[in-house]
Amino acid sequence: MPVRKYYDIEEKVINASDVVGVTKKIPIGKNEGWDGYTLRVFKIAPGGNTPKHKHDWEHVNYIISGKGKLTIDGREHEVSQKDFAFVPPNALHQFQNPFDKDFEFICIVPNRGEY
Amino acid sequence: MPVRKYYDIEEKVINASDVVGVTKKIPIGKNEGWDGYTLRVFKIAPGGNTPKHKHDWEHVNYIISGKGKLTIDGREHEVSQKDFAFVPPNALHQFQNPFDKDFEFICIVPNRGEY
Repeated sequence: MPVRKYYDIEEKVINASDVVGVTKKIPIGKNEGWDGYTLRVFKIAPGGNTPKHKHDWEHVNYIISGKGKLTIDGREHEVSQKDFAFVPPNALHQFQNPFDKDFEFICIVPNRGEY
Repeated sequence: MPVRKYYDIEEKVINASDVVGVTKKIPIGKNEGWDGYTLRVFKIAPGGNTPKHKHDWEHVNYIISGKGKLTIDGREHEVSQKDFAFVPPNALHQFQNPFDKDFEFICIVPNRGEY
């Protein structure tokens, strides 16, 4: 399956106490043949957020649509369509959507970060 | 530099005999702290193409805008905005833009594939 269409990829709601209004797709990972990393797509609804947390792996991000806030070690960055971001290992970080449209972005992690 | 804006990233024209109408940006790689891989953005103008070639590393792709053709081991795939693709190691592949708008996509490779 060398090409995957966005709308063909299953979208799962993330259920966790510190996650609000977030869905996830996994377009490319181990199943597609990528050994090292996994490319996920997260969509945060207006008012939603990912957990504020840290871990010893990096995030590589591309903003697909909308805009949101990415806080890294206490510093807030507004990010919008076509921006790129790199969250270093061990940085405390959170994505939030205080705006009125869905905020959608690619988030690549080493496979041990996708569980 | 945790966030990079698309329009702030230098765009280089690729000059090679088997490359037509292609520019490259490097939003995230070793310089930004990503050890293993490099995230590049290629833009192919109408009528342009990347080389038909193969190598022992994979490509991980996301189509940012426009549409184009991705041929993998003789099989042609039309790809367009929001599609994902995985080109396996050692596959003969080429991107072409026979359409009338710019075709732009993310292409992630192991660092040894970015030179």
